[in-house]
Amino acid sequence: MSFITLTTDFGLSDAYVAVMKGVILSINPDVRIIDISHNIKAGHIAHAGYVLKEACPFFPKGTIHVAVVDPGVGNARRPVIVVTDDYFFVGPDNGIFWPIITTCGPSEIIHLTKPEFFLSAISKTFHGRDIFAPVAAHLSKGYEPKEMGLIIKDPVKLEIKTPRKKGNILFGEVIRVDHFGNIITNISKKVLGRFLKGSKPVIKAGDLIIKDIVNSYSEAGMGEALVLIGSSDYLEIAVNRGRAADFIGIAPYKIIGTEIEVRRNTNPITRTN
Amino acid sequence: MSFITLTTDFGLSDAYVAVMKGVILSINPDVRIIDISHNIKAGHIAHAGYVLKEACPFFPKGTIHVAVVDPGVGNARRPVIVVTDDYFFVGPDNGIFWPIITTCGPSEIIHLTKPEFFLSAISKTFHGRDIFAPVAAHLSKGYEPKEMGLIIKDPVKLEIKTPRKKGNILFGEVIRVDHFGNIITNISKKVLGRFLKGSKPVIKAGDLIIKDIVNSYSEAGMGEALVLIGSSDYLEIAVNRGRAADFIGIAPYKIIGTEIEVRRNTNPITRTN
Amino acid sequence: MSFITLTTDFGLSDAYVAVMKGVILSINPDVRIIDISHNIKAGHIAHAGYVLKEACPFFPKGTIHVAVVDPGVGNARRPVIVVTDDYFFVGPDNGIFWPIITTCGPSEIIHLTKPEFFLSAISKTFHGRDIFAPVAAHLSKGYEPKEMGLIIKDPVKLEIKTPRKKGNILFGEVIRVDHFGNIITNISKKVLGRFLKGSKPVIKAGDLIIKDIVNSYSEAGMGEALVLIGSSDYLEIAVNRGRAADFIGIAPYKIIGTEIEVRRNTNPITRTN
Repeated sequence: MSFITLTTDFGLSDAYVAVMKGVILSINPDVRIIDISHNIKAGHIAHAGYVLKEACPFFPKGTIHVAVVDPGVGNARRPVIVVTDDYFFVGPDNGIFWPIITTCGPSEIIHLTKPEFFLSAISKTFHGRDIFAPVAAHLSKGYEPKEMGLIIKDPVKLEIKTPRKKGNILFGEVIRVDHFGNIITNISKKVLGRFLKGSKPVIKAGDLIIKDIVNSYSEAGMGEALVLIGSSDYLEIAVNRGRAADFIGIAPYKIIGTEIEVRRNTNPITRTN
Repeated sequence: MSFITLTTDFGLSDAYVAVMKGVILSINPDVRIIDISHNIKAGHIAHAGYVLKEACPFFPKGTIHVAVVDPGVGNARRPVIVVTDDYFFVGPDNGIFWPIITTCGPSEIIHLTKPEFFLSAISKTFHGRDIFAPVAAHLSKGYEPKEMGLIIKDPVKLEIKTPRKKGNILFGEVIRVDHFGNIITNISKKVLGRFLKGSKPVIKAGDLIIKDIVNSYSEAGMGEALVLIGSSDYLEIAVNRGRAADFIGIAPYKIIGTEIEVRRNTNPITRTN
Repeated sequence: MSFITLTTDFGLSDAYVAVMKGVILSINPDVRIIDISHNIKAGHIAHAGYVLKEACPFFPKGTIHVAVVDPGVGNARRPVIVVTDDYFFVGPDNGIFWPIITTCGPSEIIHLTKPEFFLSAISKTFHGRDIFAPVAAHLSKGYEPKEMGLIIKDPVKLEIKTPRKKGNILFGEVIRVDHFGNIITNISKKVLGRFLKGSKPVIKAGDLIIKDIVNSYSEAGMGEALVLIGSSDYLEIAVNRGRAADFIGIAPYKIIGTEIEVRRNTNPITRTN
């Protein structure tokens, strides 16, 4: 049993996603196709990279993950397969796989150069159909990545901002707002734990100031803001039964990138002395 | 052949739904997963309950229906399986299965207490991933609900408003607005039939007053309001090629719960005497 | 291995699509169901017809394509199967299959008249569930279209506007705006090639005047408008990393049908003489 997942910014009101599925099933009718998301914001490579990184480890070993957020389609950017211990990733070499490459350990990257694994005519506008879908389908039939191209060592990187510490404050930033309006930051559970060393934090995000971290969304009062470690182990700002993104006091299109401060609640006696 | 359906309020722009699918397929790669809806309004337990009740009877016997609208995740609410004659339902015990329990006759409810059927680490924010997906996958492999926990008799109920009669008027209310803007009420074909006993009705809903009930959407003129018995056998207010919800004269966020009057068109001679 | 695709205007927040899938799987649990789109604009038969025409040729031979955009459900419009060399199409005879009928060459059209292939009760509001889903499922089990009804020769047509030439100008129109805001016209690569005969064009669409045709979206500067032949071989107006539909200077609800001018850039010396 072989699985292909799809992550794109194509939306679901056009034929684009279905065309990719048709191409795959025409090459390998036995493979099963699972949608991760087709609602990635148009052209937002980092958004796709994060969603894919979050979803992929839950899939069976051997799953082929296709990701197509590809504003540079038709120019010089390379089509690639990234091979990790557990999975194959197929898509453009534009940084979309950088979160995978940096977190899944040693991986091999193949520049796809063999047109016999593509559709017979290659457009300059839809490589999801012409290159990535057929390559994924051929992988699912057992072809080896190395048969399909050449190893490269210089994949395009994604600039990923990491939190920085300054005295008693840890500065992070918002990387995503989810469907519930929850605000997800780049501060991981691990980084936070090392910074706090057991002391209680105060978190500042736009207009919101929240004391302490809770465990679940319903630990705050209805409509009240809270902070917790979200399901993918990153610091998250939420509102019980509400949308934190509507409470932060920052225009929606500016929320991503907003600075988040985590202040260590040091012992007041120690400080005033 | 075994099927699992999914009904959630997770939307499709994050990794959440795909993560649940990955968890299921990692446990049982042979099961087939069908989406019912991931566009349930965030936290609207009743909306999920109605959609699930409407969809479930059309699926093959033995289908496992997972529903996760779970604002109380991580607190004391119990994870459950509801077993009916034909199906299994897996999700939180927060009223989401109440429409099923009250319409599908005798059922058995199991409180899920055995962590060996869950993922190894249980978060307090995402039981869809950690509990409900793996339990559904194990059910699909043939495990018995009773192996997974303890029978309970006190499931959480959902307050369901039923129509009430006052003289020649039947009062119901709006329970849902569908994708087409059709307004669906809690007045069933059966209740309506008993009330009307063959006489013609006049229906009042917000600004709309509609005489008689038609059989299909195109029996009214283009852009005209009509009333019919919808595909799930409830009284429905619609507009031919338009959105009834835009014609009712009530703000969109207030439509649900709006009172609907069905007036029996009694013989005028009898009334004036 | 047998496939059924679905194209509807049902959206994904109600039970409607899932109900159709349940009906299909109850009749043939082995068939695999692929969504083309459920976000067709409500009642827009032409939109569905174009999306289906664009997606269908990429699917394996024998695929059964169900399309339900059906504002006339419950009145006299006929339910049909259209049989082409490669596929079966199941849905209402309201013009939705006209783009298929006119481009896929000789086809046979069957008016569905045999209730033994439908659900036992036929509503006047949801033939997707009661007629089209069960007919598709029976086709996937090997029943012949001719067993299900009578051949008809007079399918309902869709008025399709074709480009017209006037001197050095080719007039086309906008037929669709896609998820990226790209504006897709009814001017095919073939018609354009014959008109230009190698000369360079100037394209006028609303406020936009664009010189020449490029090959890929990233050949214009960021935020600049461009024209190319899109992935389905029609002239398309786009903006590199932007939404052309927001730049054209025409209200969104008026864009479809907007006139597009392609002017042949004739030799200026010839013209002034």
